[in-house]
Amino acid sequence: MSQKDVTKQLAAWIARTRLDDIPQSVREEGVRTFFNWLGCAVGGARHETVDCALGGIMPFAGKPQATVIGRAERLDVPNAALVNGISSHVLDYDDTHLKTIIHPAGPVASALLATAEYMPVSGADFLEALIIGVEVECRLGNSVYPEHYDRGWHITGTTGVFGAAAAVSHLLKLDEKQITWALGIAATQASGLREMFGTMCKSLHPGVAARNGALAAFLARAGFDSSLQAIEAPRGFANVLSTKQDYNEILGSLGETWEAGLNSYKPFACGIVIHPTIDGCQQLREELGADVAKIAAVRLRTHPLVLELTGKREPKTGLETKFSVFHAAACALLRGDGSPTAFTDEAANAPELVALRRKVDATSDTSIHEASVVIEVEFEDGHKIVKTIERAIGSHDKPLSNEHLARKFAHQSALVVGDEVTERLMALAWRLPELADVGEVARASVPANLRSAAE
Amino acid sequence: MSQKDVTKQLAAWIARTRLDDIPQSVREEGVRTFFNWLGCAVGGARHETVDCALGGIMPFAGKPQATVIGRAERLDVPNAALVNGISSHVLDYDDTHLKTIIHPAGPVASALLATAEYMPVSGADFLEALIIGVEVECRLGNSVYPEHYDRGWHITGTTGVFGAAAAVSHLLKLDEKQITWALGIAATQASGLREMFGTMCKSLHPGVAARNGALAAFLARAGFDSSLQAIEAPRGFANVLSTKQDYNEILGSLGETWEAGLNSYKPFACGIVIHPTIDGCQQLREELGADVAKIAAVRLRTHPLVLELTGKREPKTGLETKFSVFHAAACALLRGDGSPTAFTDEAANAPELVALRRKVDATSDTSIHEASVVIEVEFEDGHKIVKTIERAIGSHDKPLSNEHLARKFAHQSALVVGDEVTERLMALAWRLPELADVGEVARASVPANLRSAAE
Repeated sequence: MSQKDVTKQLAAWIARTRLDDIPQSVREEGVRTFFNWLGCAVGGARHETVDCALGGIMPFAGKPQATVIGRAERLDVPNAALVNGISSHVLDYDDTHLKTIIHPAGPVASALLATAEYMPVSGADFLEALIIGVEVECRLGNSVYPEHYDRGWHITGTTGVFGAAAAVSHLLKLDEKQITWALGIAATQASGLREMFGTMCKSLHPGVAARNGALAAFLARAGFDSSLQAIEAPRGFANVLSTKQDYNEILGSLGETWEAGLNSYKPFACGIVIHPTIDGCQQLREELGADVAKIAAVRLRTHPLVLELTGKREPKTGLETKFSVFHAAACALLRGDGSPTAFTDEAANAPELVALRRKVDATSDTSIHEASVVIEVEFEDGHKIVKTIERAIGSHDKPLSNEHLARKFAHQSALVVGDEVTERLMALAWRLPELADVGEVARASVPANLRSAAE
Repeated sequence: MSQKDVTKQLAAWIARTRLDDIPQSVREEGVRTFFNWLGCAVGGARHETVDCALGGIMPFAGKPQATVIGRAERLDVPNAALVNGISSHVLDYDDTHLKTIIHPAGPVASALLATAEYMPVSGADFLEALIIGVEVECRLGNSVYPEHYDRGWHITGTTGVFGAAAAVSHLLKLDEKQITWALGIAATQASGLREMFGTMCKSLHPGVAARNGALAAFLARAGFDSSLQAIEAPRGFANVLSTKQDYNEILGSLGETWEAGLNSYKPFACGIVIHPTIDGCQQLREELGADVAKIAAVRLRTHPLVLELTGKREPKTGLETKFSVFHAAACALLRGDGSPTAFTDEAANAPELVALRRKVDATSDTSIHEASVVIEVEFEDGHKIVKTIERAIGSHDKPLSNEHLARKFAHQSALVVGDEVTERLMALAWRLPELADVGEVARASVPANLRSAAE
């Protein structure tokens, strides 16, 4: 595989690929990717991080071309892409390409939907561009992962800008040379440090990637040029930002095997290591009914990473509860909840949850798989039961069903925009490939009372 | 020096520093920095790169808050910062911090002047913020140079975003914590690849740094938070983007020695390695008068980098002439020109210049200093003269005088906005410390006929 023309060959593929070239299963995953992204963007729409971002950019925003998902504000295309990229990631509840832990939809779908309100785009064209963008992003990630991530780059930001540029370039029907330029304009803005995890800047990364990627396509269309070897040149993206460069991951079997078909979706709004525990405790709750009140002790045997990353015994805030397997177990047993409402300041301090989490203990066991857990429950009368989770829901072997995705969407969205808007949004999102104008989805995310307030 | 608090200590210094703390010589250099930046921004204002940038962003621009220097368009603050950052760098004629080859003013002054049209700013406050921004930018550069640059980063982009964030944060009177956030928001967007040299993306870098740096300050003011150790953390800027991290270059004698006082200005619109040749040939032209027409041969003895970087014998385009020491020598001898007009398509193909450059030869000599050249001229009657340049004008030992800066400004500006606007602009720029409202400078850069066209 020639290393000389990586960027140009990738651009040529972006230019020529059509929905007919994409297998049906990948197209279906593309719809699920969009559906899950939309639910997360609505769910995060009123987060403080989004308020602060809007506070910073509103004085400078352009014409009201595009919707801030779930809110009254309308912004120019790049700024809408920025804010929707933030809101879709801010709850740590979005999609994951498990090979690289890229969260693919944030940069790509945010850039595309804002663009689709500027120029009418059919659902089929949108889906085509979305899958192309996610494919480019994940392949870029594969070419430099894990060295690139280990060095400290937040890979969702650094590869997301390529995905957004590819997707919007395709939507704008740019030619091969223009797409090569757009990829170059994207490459030279690739950024995002892992040091920002735990701060608002973490979710800024997919937002910035969406904005810069979309603008890269519009700049290239206007004739703004760039290197033609931005990915593979000695001083290009892969060499400057990584010690690993495997260009076969980008061009090998391109259009034949699909990373976009491997996207996965978090069932719970927290780090993936405590997902098995939440899954098992939710199942126990279903089985136990009222007996949950008679629990005397809960003993978890977990992979060592669980206590390393989420061993906080007495979380005081919503953010801290995301790092407490004890809280997560108690909340799943008592409330059946692993959604964003399980990780709030209220939940951190609810007396019944505090009481139960103090009865939870955990031990590390190197023989336990990362996607597994063994849960022993002892009751006040002394009898015990054991629940073993081999593979948690949401892991590679147990993907979320469409029904589960719908429950996830409805639960987080209803809290922000109400049931009626939520129902309509979900119906539209599932019908993505048939929509005449995808911008309709964005506009439908805004409750009527907010819409009239803005007019 | 504690490595733990680099970002916070830098932020504290940014917050507390006042013009009175800055030595008079550094303040004077700050005025020269602004003056030179303004002339370059006007000089580059009609470049094709600027046209293409505007073509890409105009559909999305916000309220007409700030001037595009020398043009009719008015943009929102971040977009004006972006475009003025591009135009000030596009002719390769701007300022240089010689230790790091950062071009300091592009990111910082572009961000500041756009902000100064949004909220009135006095010249004294502007100068204070400008010097602080340049100081932060150059110190960041010193802390990672040369390893950071050698890896492939365009250091003007990667450190410029810190300079712009520092400067605008200071102008907005942010507190220490907010400035720490702004530096973090800047750090996580640090970008710009050297692979882009020779394309429009090279001048995009200071533009993007100006835009992102300004927005970082406005986001921090709105409460958008960040890591408090963005520069020095294990996964922060210095460790992720460089193998060298010398934090003493950032905090050592901060406020006592001034990198901002070391700024230099290019006398000629091309790479610095052929400056000695142009300087020498211009002097020969003055001395020879009409005898220039009788030259039979020109023989240059130069530092080896000269032929390595600028050895193009037959340049066909204006861009190619910047990489031809033969063209540069001929143009300086015949026209006395080393300004942007010396590096045009016309100049590349002018018969008299082509004829003379074919008489120019150059040999590499490792004993010749980078800032030196020996020029032997042989005439048709066989007699020879030799001109030796020990240190070219514009080098560290021979800084440009204010008069030379004014000639440079006038020459490039008059071509774009005419003599009258140029005279007024230069007078305003020299008076920077006394101006009541610096925004006036930006508005004065637009010729009256363009201004009325836009209204």
